[in-house]
Amino acid sequence: MKALLFDKELKLVNDYEKPIPKKNEALVRVTLAGICNTDYEITKGYMGYVGILGHEAVGIVEDVNSDDKSLIGKRVVPEISYGCEDPECEWCAKKNYRHCPNRHTLGIWQKDGVFAQYFTMPTKVLFEVPDEVPDTQAVFVEPLAAALEINEQLHIKPMDKVVVLGDGKLGLITALALNSQNIDVTLVGKHQNKLDIAKEQGVKTALLQDFSIEKKYDIVVEATGSVSGFETSLALTKPRGVLVLKSTVATGKELNLAPIVIDEITVLGSRCGQFPPALRLLQSGKVDFSKLISGIYDVDKALEAFERNKEKDTLKVLLKF
Amino acid sequence: MKALLFDKELKLVNDYEKPIPKKNEALVRVTLAGICNTDYEITKGYMGYVGILGHEAVGIVEDVNSDDKSLIGKRVVPEISYGCEDPECEWCAKKNYRHCPNRHTLGIWQKDGVFAQYFTMPTKVLFEVPDEVPDTQAVFVEPLAAALEINEQLHIKPMDKVVVLGDGKLGLITALALNSQNIDVTLVGKHQNKLDIAKEQGVKTALLQDFSIEKKYDIVVEATGSVSGFETSLALTKPRGVLVLKSTVATGKELNLAPIVIDEITVLGSRCGQFPPALRLLQSGKVDFSKLISGIYDVDKALEAFERNKEKDTLKVLLKF
Repeated sequence: MKALLFDKELKLVNDYEKPIPKKNEALVRVTLAGICNTDYEITKGYMGYVGILGHEAVGIVEDVNSDDKSLIGKRVVPEISYGCEDPECEWCAKKNYRHCPNRHTLGIWQKDGVFAQYFTMPTKVLFEVPDEVPDTQAVFVEPLAAALEINEQLHIKPMDKVVVLGDGKLGLITALALNSQNIDVTLVGKHQNKLDIAKEQGVKTALLQDFSIEKKYDIVVEATGSVSGFETSLALTKPRGVLVLKSTVATGKELNLAPIVIDEITVLGSRCGQFPPALRLLQSGKVDFSKLISGIYDVDKALEAFERNKEKDTLKVLLKF
Repeated sequence: MKALLFDKELKLVNDYEKPIPKKNEALVRVTLAGICNTDYEITKGYMGYVGILGHEAVGIVEDVNSDDKSLIGKRVVPEISYGCEDPECEWCAKKNYRHCPNRHTLGIWQKDGVFAQYFTMPTKVLFEVPDEVPDTQAVFVEPLAAALEINEQLHIKPMDKVVVLGDGKLGLITALALNSQNIDVTLVGKHQNKLDIAKEQGVKTALLQDFSIEKKYDIVVEATGSVSGFETSLALTKPRGVLVLKSTVATGKELNLAPIVIDEITVLGSRCGQFPPALRLLQSGKVDFSKLISGIYDVDKALEAFERNKEKDTLKVLLKF
């Protein structure tokens, strides 16, 4: 099968062996997949991963290795991780496979990813996509779930003022997700054309150059991944407020931690999230990510798609299988 | 009056003008004061402060500038800050003067400190010391309140495993305070003689070299103020756990923020605390700080006391007036 591999370099191969589902796993034929910045980080050495890249996908179940075949023919999205299932593992006991220390994570850790014609995953981490949600929206379920993870971790109160800093896809998806929940959120970024995508859906937006940097926001979501973004986020967070750190940029940052202590700021690391609330939000139609799609490339042009993803101003690049 | 001033350099003066209490302020004659590492940081330029140093003290009220003279003759400890009292100030409205943006802070910001024969403070931020608590314990109320601030910010659950990293006075006071509340706390440090002070009062202790660095603690309190201490603390915090940052060391730290995001760690800045619970704990006799006292110096030897404070292995140095 066709697959986009990373092994020291990125390469598209045509003869990768089609995977065989293990017990209680399904074989999924990929229809559409999304390139994430984490994929790009991996090609620079993040996690030391070698294998098929990719963890955002929609596909059709072609086979299931268990007695229950009901998933065959269904359109599904895969959660990003599955756990060790050791009865002693507290994370697996809570079905929070995302923190299992021996987890397997699609295209990131110990598990081939979704940038291929087929992948396998345990059936219990596959979620059926509602009919109302087209592939081009369903492919956003993983980053949307990551945005909604903020709600899982944090009680956002009705009077809270929230800023999302950064108008890349992470910032846009997060601002749209929060705004859809009647939260008072302002998206701040450097690109009017990107801010406008959120503005059209009712999000308050501001260009960074016009935005007053004051310690007056209860919650600030750092979605730039840059040192200066982190510093600006700190400068926007009110005393005892929360700075949500969403970026896994793996570079060292020199920063002064004293303001965190003096203002008793909570810095909250936030990563992947649960799929059911993200699918529910997509089904409701309250968020629309179609304008975040910068291009859809046939798998044969996957390397070109990767180059496009690196370009400034690119939002989501999709791979069609 | 005698006063220990910082103005580019540290100097002991004998002719500093005795302060006059403003409306609703008291004049307090200092009996005992404690040197904090923040005082030392200030002499290196922290906060750009100029004036009398010091924010930890016990004293006797000599005069009150208000109709209510009931505080005269009472032994008191001063909270570290008082607020602007602007009716629009949300922090003053909550009596949380510690975060008022226009606060005055003893010996740190816009307010002469306590390393002098007299200081003034608004009566409402002076707390009477119970008779059972000698000056040598009462002088620890401010750092003890800072340790108990963790309880204010964080719900520590009965099954939580807590590590305090660092066996300086901050770490010792924090470990003793948490242990006194039936919390499962282990103090980890590099100095057996310091660890023993906590061990004698029932705290579990471990030398860092013998301590297994695993991500298995729900709450880790960073009390070393060093970059390596921060990194070790991160390596001890379990996924979704809390790293409490207690140090205001004002130097830049180069560090990789990715583990905070991947393990969804909460980094909680924690500073000064409320006095009533600290006084209650001192009154109960459940903590004893007498072995933390490295020396008591007459005010005339204040410069010598400051030198002593800088020495390795010194814990709390007190100034007697």
